[in-house]
Order: sequence, then C-alpha cells, then structure tokens
Amino acid sequence: MERFRVVYRIFADSAAEAMRRAHDVALEQTVEVPADVVPQGFIADEIVGKVGRAEMGERGVFDVAISYSPDSVGTELCQLLNVIFGNSSIQQGVKVVGFEPGATIAERFAGPRFGIEGVRARANRPKGGLISPVIKPQGSSPETLAEIAFRCVAGGADIIKDDHGLADQPMAPFEERTEKVAAAVARANAEFGMSALHFANITGRSDELVERAFFAKRAGAGGVLLMPGLLGFEIVQQLAADPAFGLPIMTHPSFTGPFVLSPETGFTHAMMYGVLQRLAGSDISVFPNVGGRFGFSAEECVSIADACRDPAGIGKPIFPSPGGGMSVDRAADMAAMYGDDVVYLIGGSLLRHGDRIGEAVTAMRRAVDAVPGAR
Amino acid sequence: MERFRVVYRIFADSAAEAMRRAHDVALEQTVEVPADVVPQGFIADEIVGKVGRAEMGERGVFDVAISYSPDSVGTELCQLLNVIFGNSSIQQGVKVVGFEPGATIAERFAGPRFGIEGVRARANRPKGGLISPVIKPQGSSPETLAEIAFRCVAGGADIIKDDHGLADQPMAPFEERTEKVAAAVARANAEFGMSALHFANITGRSDELVERAFFAKRAGAGGVLLMPGLLGFEIVQQLAADPAFGLPIMTHPSFTGPFVLSPETGFTHAMMYGVLQRLAGSDISVFPNVGGRFGFSAEECVSIADACRDPAGIGKPIFPSPGGGMSVDRAADMAAMYGDDVVYLIGGSLLRHGDRIGEAVTAMRRAVDAVPGAR
Repeated sequence: MERFRVVYRIFADSAAEAMRRAHDVALEQTVEVPADVVPQGFIADEIVGKVGRAEMGERGVFDVAISYSPDSVGTELCQLLNVIFGNSSIQQGVKVVGFEPGATIAERFAGPRFGIEGVRARANRPKGGLISPVIKPQGSSPETLAEIAFRCVAGGADIIKDDHGLADQPMAPFEERTEKVAAAVARANAEFGMSALHFANITGRSDELVERAFFAKRAGAGGVLLMPGLLGFEIVQQLAADPAFGLPIMTHPSFTGPFVLSPETGFTHAMMYGVLQRLAGSDISVFPNVGGRFGFSAEECVSIADACRDPAGIGKPIFPSPGGGMSVDRAADMAAMYGDDVVYLIGGSLLRHGDRIGEAVTAMRRAVDAVPGAR
Repeated sequence: MERFRVVYRIFADSAAEAMRRAHDVALEQTVEVPADVVPQGFIADEIVGKVGRAEMGERGVFDVAISYSPDSVGTELCQLLNVIFGNSSIQQGVKVVGFEPGATIAERFAGPRFGIEGVRARANRPKGGLISPVIKPQGSSPETLAEIAFRCVAGGADIIKDDHGLADQPMAPFEERTEKVAAAVARANAEFGMSALHFANITGRSDELVERAFFAKRAGAGGVLLMPGLLGFEIVQQLAADPAFGLPIMTHPSFTGPFVLSPETGFTHAMMYGVLQRLAGSDISVFPNVGGRFGFSAEECVSIADACRDPAGIGKPIFPSPGGGMSVDRAADMAAMYGDDVVYLIGGSLLRHGDRIGEAVTAMRRAVDAVPGAR
C-alpha cells in the first residue's frame, strides 16, 4: 500500500512554527487527538499523517508535504477529501497546493471515464476547440430552450450545455425540459449531420440524482452537468465509475468560489478546478474565464487548464472549459492561451442574436477553426 | 407567492458601484444573461432578482437586499442555495450576511424535525447543557470504539458522537462499527438508567447515504452525523423531511472553512453554521469553539449560537454545538457564554483519561450542572 501526499502551503512567521503547524495538520486530518494520546502501534505508525519534505517559498510561506495511509480513506471519495482538507480547511493560513495520489489511491479512484479523447470521439470533433453554447435563461419554457438548442446545433455547436440554473422549476420541470431539449438536439444532429451532445443539468435529492442522470440518458442526453459544490463530489465519481451509465460528465463551479478566492485558505485554482474535478471523474471542468464577469487572472486560468490536461495527473486528461470572455474577436487570443483541447462555453451574450443565434455560433466556430493549428 | 430575500455585503468604493454590482448579482444568480437580453414579461418581472433596500455600513461596505421568486427555486434545497450564492460565490467582495425566507420558502423548507426540545426529550435531559464525547481515533477497532462509548455513557454523556473521520475504513467498517457502538450505548443506557443517543457518522456514495442512515437506525443509533460540506446539504434535508427516518441530525463543519474565513467572500459564521444548517434541517450544528484549535472569536461563536436559536429563524430552534475548548475549569465561562441550550463536544483530550474516561465525563457533567441556572 502506497501512501498519498498532500502539499499544504502554510503561512507562518518562522520555519519552526510552520513545522509545528504541519504536525498539527497531520494529527487534525487523521486521528484528531493530541499527540500524547495517540495509541501506539498501527495508529501512531500508519494512520497519523507523516510530515515530510518542506520547502520555503517567499518569506513566511512554507510548502510542507504530509503523507497519509490509504487506510485513513477506505474507498470513499468524500473521506479522501475529508483527509485531504476536512477540519484543516477551517484554519487560517493553510492552503492545499498539491496532491500526489500514489499507486493505491490511483487504483481506487480511476478518474474520468472519457477524458479529452472520449469526448472528442462522441462529439465527432477530432481536433480544435469545442464550442458549447449554454441554453438559458431560467424561466423559459422547455419549448423555448429546445428551440435555442436546435438553432445552436444547426450553427455548429459541439456541446449544448444546460444553464446551471435550470433545475426542476415549474416553468420547465426537469423531465419535460430534458426530453424536449435532447429531442431538439437529436433532430438538429440528424438534419445537419452533426454529433452535438446535450449535457443535461442534474439536481435534486441525494437519492434522486442517479435516477435523474439515467432519465437524461434515456431521453437522449449526451452527457450530464453536475455541481459538486452543491451536490458533493461523490455523485461525480459514482456516475463516472458506473459502466451502465457511460456518459461524459461536465462539472460546474457554482458555490465553490470561497475555496479559491483567499490567498491563504482553501485550494489553489488548479487544485479545485483541475485536480479535484479530475479525481472525482469529471471529463470537462467549467471555470470562469479571464476577461469575463469574474476576477480570475490569465495565469490562474492557464494553471487550471494545465492541471486538467497534465499527463501525470489522475486518470485521463480532461477538457478545461472556460466560461465567458469568449468572442469572435478574441478567438485567436483564447486559442493561443488554451491550445486545442478546450471547450469554450458561450453564454448569455449569444441570446443577443435572437433567431440568428445559429449564425453567431457559426461565426464562433469559424473563428476558432481559423486559428493556426486548429482544424 | 412571497419572494425571499438575501442580504449581500458588497465591498465597493462608492454607493453607485455597490448598486451596480448588486444589479449584476441579481442577474447572475437568476437568468445569468446581460440585462439587455432578458426576455420581457414574466422573466424580467419575476425571475430576475430585484434589488431592494441598501444600507451603508463602515466606509466601503454596503449591505444590499435582493429578493428572488420562489419560482427560481422550485422545491430543491440545492437550487435554493444555487440562487442564494451559486455563481456570485466566485466573485470577490460579495458576502452573504442575511436570509429572509418569506412565507413560501418557509413552507417548502420546514427545517429541523426535532430542534432543541425534540432532542432534549429523546436524551431525557430537559434542562442544562448536553455533554457529547466524541469517540475516536480513526484506526481503532469497533470494539475499542464501543468500549469508549460505553464508559462515556456510564459517566453521564447525553450524546455519543462518532468522530467525523470514522467513515468506512477497513479497521472499522461502517456497519460493524455502527452496530457495536450502538449496542454498547444501549447496554450502558440499560445498566445505568441513561438515555444517551449515539450519533452515527454517515458517509458514502450519494445513493448509499439514505440506506446507511436507515441501517444506523435499525442498529439502534439515536441520530446521525452528516457533513454537508462534503456530501451536500440535500441529504440533511431529505433525512430531516422523512417521517419514516425520524432521528435527529447533527451536522459537522468539515470542508466548509473557506466559506467563512475571508472577511469579503463566502458567508458570515452565523449564516453558515446557523442559518444554513437549520434551513437544511440539522438539529445540532457543530462548529469550532473559541479557545480550541481554530481561530473563531467569542463574538463569532455567539453569533452562530444566536442564529441556531433565533425564535424568528426557519423552523425550530436548534442546538449550537461548540467543539473543543471545553474543560471542567471553563464550564462556568462556557455556560455564561452559551446559556443552557447547547451541546458541548468533548474531543481528544478525554482520551487522556484512558480507562477512567467515564470519570472525566462525570466531572464535566457536574461542572456543567453546577452552573447557576442549569439543572
């Protein structure tokens, strides 16, 4: 059994204080008892986290690796996250900046079922950035949403993503909305020779989520959208690991902002929107693009994309999916920044084109394809 | 249908900027499209958030109320949280400081099944603070954990709480651990005339959680412990709303720290560990006590306790449950701070007493009962 490692960035006045706090984290994240009452033997030797290498960065910043036994985890993703950063998430001046699963955890958590290659195969888009219009707004009827989806596929969309605010509201209940949108995408695919995938947003009670995902599949959806910040990461892993489900998964960052917005707490952007999503089994990780309505920097966005596609990461490389900040004018810049393996979300601004929304998608498709190196 | 209100604290250079950003939040949390493409009629009139009263606090700080239609939500808790603070959680300088459910949301989300009175009745502790030792550490056998539980009940514990790090590890698999600990608590209750409740920690895949909660009930557990930060809030609501389940719920703050640690993002302490837990249906909300290993201030802890017990809050008042920082010496101070309606978690330091752990619980029981006004 190989131990896994978490790298914590500890903000402290001295190396001695950083190491003392690292030892506290090693206890807090496992036995949660003072050092002097840890039972000797297996618990002291294996279960308590082991403080390993430490690196000093800029003044007052120390990156300390702590290793844990896979026996602390078992086979549950929620418990893996609990060991990585459960209670210590409530302490100031500790941030998770790295995760090395090791062989044992990598075997237990296989990660994404499809990854970049699998999604490309299903969308029949072997090269170049994928275009993913978002159907919205909430309050629209299923027919309106289906009509928007149809026009976007006609215009050349690869993925039709439900807005994450489409849940099970009375204006467009989950089942009716999903059936109508998936059917519209199927009609447009047939009519225009496309292979667009509809990603249906799955919400609901814990014990309904799996059922709803299978409903979407039966209705013809080509994937599902999940919000792990609101639903937990377990549902992502469960669906990714289920061969009977077998559809790609896109994850959305709703309700996760506080994990990355403070420099001294939570996770790095790459950990939250790259490493953790991929660990859970997401094939496409949505995050706010630089230049949109959110404050992520270009560097932060690139770090997310790199973590999504890191050949040494958990399981298959996955698509980063920057949301917002994309336009025909910026296509070349975006392609230079993200490369080919990217899913561009195109949101509310598309609606400005009304009935000609398909033409706007086509313009985006052409702008992305015109970038050298893309298809 | 009555709209619900969320109060956002917006950090901005001027009142004009704060109001502009409030209008952005009102769009972001609902239609997520620019103002000029919002469809006229129902969506513009009802679905888009309405910016209401604004109050200026200290320089650069503005509290702005935004009201939303219950139609934005439907009946799902995850979607209610998505409207309260989904995407806007990813923006700097916006913090949720208040929530007014209004009649419609209050009808749809009934909150806790038991609350303070219900838990007191089940634990047969009509007055005074409740004492809740935590059984740990992870890595222990089910027999060892059961033995600790037995001794704690013998010593006068009201609630035996599983450590939140006890999941389904090979050293103490969920079913075996839960059966043995619940049986030990039942034996001690019978032998010593007690009514202690064992709260079993429930983890696992999304579709296993309900099943595990019912397993714990059949095994004799008197309640369940849930970690909404890792599992989502839905499972709390689902179990609280299910009359066939009918056991009290304790919620644990693991993985939620980043929501409260930054002054300008996330939620206030009272919102996260008071309002949201109670909204979901928790009967006992655990949070880190002042003076323990975490940095919460006395003022923050009192604000949490006040929100848990606010007579005007959602559904029944619930127990605040400060973890750590409690000792015989501090009992009088803690009682002065929290009053009678409180569940004191007593953690790792208890283990220092070894086989005499029961006597340590008795000493705590006496110290709490000796406080004037308590039983």
